[in-house]
Amino acid sequence: MTVDVCFSPALYNVYHNPEAVVIVVDIFRATTTIAAAFHNGAASIRPVATVQEAEQYKEKGWLVGAERNVRRCAFADFGNSPSDYSPEMVVGKDIVFTTTNGTKSITAAREAYRVITGAFINLEAVVSYCTSHGRDVVVLCSGWEDKINLEDTLFGGAVAQRLLDKGYKLKGDGAVMAYELWERHHTDILSLLNQSEHMVRLRKNGLESDVAYCLQMDLLTVVPELTITSDTLILYNNLNTIHHE
Amino acid sequence: MTVDVCFSPALYNVYHNPEAVVIVVDIFRATTTIAAAFHNGAASIRPVATVQEAEQYKEKGWLVGAERNVRRCAFADFGNSPSDYSPEMVVGKDIVFTTTNGTKSITAAREAYRVITGAFINLEAVVSYCTSHGRDVVVLCSGWEDKINLEDTLFGGAVAQRLLDKGYKLKGDGAVMAYELWERHHTDILSLLNQSEHMVRLRKNGLESDVAYCLQMDLLTVVPELTITSDTLILYNNLNTIHHE
Repeated sequence: MTVDVCFSPALYNVYHNPEAVVIVVDIFRATTTIAAAFHNGAASIRPVATVQEAEQYKEKGWLVGAERNVRRCAFADFGNSPSDYSPEMVVGKDIVFTTTNGTKSITAAREAYRVITGAFINLEAVVSYCTSHGRDVVVLCSGWEDKINLEDTLFGGAVAQRLLDKGYKLKGDGAVMAYELWERHHTDILSLLNQSEHMVRLRKNGLESDVAYCLQMDLLTVVPELTITSDTLILYNNLNTIHHE
Repeated sequence: MTVDVCFSPALYNVYHNPEAVVIVVDIFRATTTIAAAFHNGAASIRPVATVQEAEQYKEKGWLVGAERNVRRCAFADFGNSPSDYSPEMVVGKDIVFTTTNGTKSITAAREAYRVITGAFINLEAVVSYCTSHGRDVVVLCSGWEDKINLEDTLFGGAVAQRLLDKGYKLKGDGAVMAYELWERHHTDILSLLNQSEHMVRLRKNGLESDVAYCLQMDLLTVVPELTITSDTLILYNNLNTIHHE
């Protein structure tokens, strides 16, 4: 089995492998927030591509998380901060979710064998999901408006390192580059990420505590997994993957 | 001034900076071959996107270099090997050139302030060209069929390192990542590139000697620079940039 890393959703078409499990990552902050929301009891999360769609759901009475350029959209119940999705707010709820970059990648990868979302906080859980399926893995980095970014690539390298330990091979130059970045910086990722464009953007907006949360490792065991029903994308927490499948 | 690195021509639109000098790179082998051809006396090189265009030029009596998937096209005078473009063959000649990836990137970048091509063999020459212009720099990696690759990214890191020494700043996450890769591997790039997909492809085709040539540093002082005349792209060797401008 192989692991590959695609650095931007705009490149996904050349990395697409219909037989692979795709792990979509947006460390700052969509896939960290999705993991936190499921951990806190959300029943489902519907990623939608546009603010307009999210607003239409809101008008029909849904709970909606919506962010553009780091900030919560005015009409929404939540922004893109993991701390917005507290148990009191989300337990048992179906949530609609749109963010600047993360939801775009989930949509791009929809034709893969399985699509899950991953972040540092549920890294080991998504790695276990992959090994339980015994399939090739593609990590799809969400980046920022199609540009590549450091934090998602680092996560790709972390997945690659753990799958190498399980006997997987690096598939291509993207996987090698991500793995090399992780190997060089995993003992102190903060000093690398101090150069990250998006971290600067978050700090400017007073979101330092989100940054700290997003960089914790293996905190949660949730595995958000994509289902497509009548052309609607819905994420559910896959409860069965860690111990058997 | 800043230096940025764009990892694939498919991402160029989000890295485009109309005021910047763009250095197009395709280490294996288009931009290495272009530098070698100018060093050996070629008068001009016209990069064309398709094999069909190149064939039409050939029918009109032009000298044509054409490669697809590592091999020379049957109708062409040259392939994509630097050694094809010997002084006896190219001195004073106008050449038409099409390759799998390199010519695509030159076309993508055509709207920039200046477009030049660079490779390890003319690294210092292109860096001097950039500093003489005193503008932002974008390194555009040609990759392989829109996928990112190690060798072009390493070159981006080498440019970034030399421009940092001249007081430039890294513009974004792409530049940081390329620079980090270069910093980790510049003392032994071959051991990294042994994992490169394209190097494996070249070796399978018996092109080991091309690999060795393409990885030499600062061998030539040519700077191939793009001119656009009546919508035709033409590269000339810029003879004036090293010592004055």
